[in-house]
Amino acid sequence: MIKSVAIQGVKGSFHHIVSQQYFDEDITVKECLSFDNAVHSLLHNKCDAVIMAIENSIAGSIIPNYALIDDYQLHIIGEHYLDIQHHLMALPNQSIEDIKEVHSHPMALLQCKAFFKKHPHIKLIEDKDTAEVAQRISKERTKSIAAIASTLASELFQLEVLAESIQTIKHNETRFVIVKTSNSEIPKEAINKASIKFELDHKRGSLASILNVLSDCKLNLTKIQSLPKIETPWKYAFFVDVTFDAYKDYQKAKSIMQIMAQEFKVLGEYKNTVR
Amino acid sequence: MIKSVAIQGVKGSFHHIVSQQYFDEDITVKECLSFDNAVHSLLHNKCDAVIMAIENSIAGSIIPNYALIDDYQLHIIGEHYLDIQHHLMALPNQSIEDIKEVHSHPMALLQCKAFFKKHPHIKLIEDKDTAEVAQRISKERTKSIAAIASTLASELFQLEVLAESIQTIKHNETRFVIVKTSNSEIPKEAINKASIKFELDHKRGSLASILNVLSDCKLNLTKIQSLPKIETPWKYAFFVDVTFDAYKDYQKAKSIMQIMAQEFKVLGEYKNTVR
Repeated sequence: MIKSVAIQGVKGSFHHIVSQQYFDEDITVKECLSFDNAVHSLLHNKCDAVIMAIENSIAGSIIPNYALIDDYQLHIIGEHYLDIQHHLMALPNQSIEDIKEVHSHPMALLQCKAFFKKHPHIKLIEDKDTAEVAQRISKERTKSIAAIASTLASELFQLEVLAESIQTIKHNETRFVIVKTSNSEIPKEAINKASIKFELDHKRGSLASILNVLSDCKLNLTKIQSLPKIETPWKYAFFVDVTFDAYKDYQKAKSIMQIMAQEFKVLGEYKNTVR
Repeated sequence: MIKSVAIQGVKGSFHHIVSQQYFDEDITVKECLSFDNAVHSLLHNKCDAVIMAIENSIAGSIIPNYALIDDYQLHIIGEHYLDIQHHLMALPNQSIEDIKEVHSHPMALLQCKAFFKKHPHIKLIEDKDTAEVAQRISKERTKSIAAIASTLASELFQLEVLAESIQTIKHNETRFVIVKTSNSEIPKEAINKASIKFELDHKRGSLASILNVLSDCKLNLTKIQSLPKIETPWKYAFFVDVTFDAYKDYQKAKSIMQIMAQEFKVLGEYKNTVR
């Protein structure tokens, strides 16, 4: 039973929104300074699970978070998709013309680049976290500075939204995973998605052979990403997500992959949610 | 003939090092504030080519740079691998104990996390660029603040290296590509690598079929990355790199892929360099 969950960032962040949407409302949210700290907190039983962004349509996979899951033998027990909408917000009774600086995470600034090109009087300042800036503006009553954050943040910190959905790509979906130290307790019948990792030598057709197995076993590929193993030239690691109708199809594919691929590892078996 | 090349960042940056290693020494380097600015400069004939980091062993693919190449119909005409070594540097005659803050790019700070855990008295401050901080420290003669940058930066800005290779993962290879507005002029016989992009419907086995074609045509896969097309649910874009011995093998695969996949596009045909 998951009663507390660690998130990166403060309340009002997109990770906080995911915790509200994925879990019941009475879940305890533990604010952490970084994904590392969130995982540390999980490993020391300070929380039951961690929510982490794992990929988005703009930046692709968040490889350092994959590395955390892989290195600490964590298990993905669920996933959640969130459509990220960035709003420009500041203390009430100011217009966009009054804003001199916007402080935000580099990725948020990058995603809203086109908007700020139309408002060249606003200086872009990189900061650690989107929601934390909103919190700070609210706490220190700072005028002329705006944050880029969620509707939840504007509500929590009583900021006024000066411009809605200012990100360049209007539909900006981010996939979050919920991770624990042990694998899912949900019944096998409910499992219809798995995240796996394996390694292959750089031999012609080696990946095609594996994908043929997945296809023969009626598995659908929803994600594939190669990552060169730097310490071992010409060896590649692959992160793959598959969906399936029957757990036994996946089980069959798994036993074949365990023989065909090297360092085969299940990062999680869970119930997929629709994008 | 490439006489001038745009880089992101200032001289002393890793992009500058790549320009020195890839081109002759008398290439003119144009410093740009961002990858966007570098591409803008190329499109307006202010330079002949752009160097951009495209993937590294820690963060994976740099999707926004793939998007720049894709959106502006640029062509990859070459690649270069650089082993990124981060050194801690400051004005001469200071010890690590004198350093109160380190200013650097978020990715560099992340990559050196373990080192700074051992030196908790140093505060980590995010900044735009690694080499630019080194330049600024040198120019403004700022004591107690360190930069994380290359040996070239320490030489150019006369800073003293306080600690060498402070990144956690000692072997940290980054792949850079050289892009132009038109495709490579090198003879077909010299071409042995291509970067391609295509789209597939989410149909079981569709990617396996394509990879079987590549394998049948004697192409080797050196990179694969799926990216969901957010505007079109269940449609995926794939970025794939292949190497080959004979251009005619690649040409054959290309004609088949043009029929089998949707939105097939060549991002570049060039000579590969060994990792």
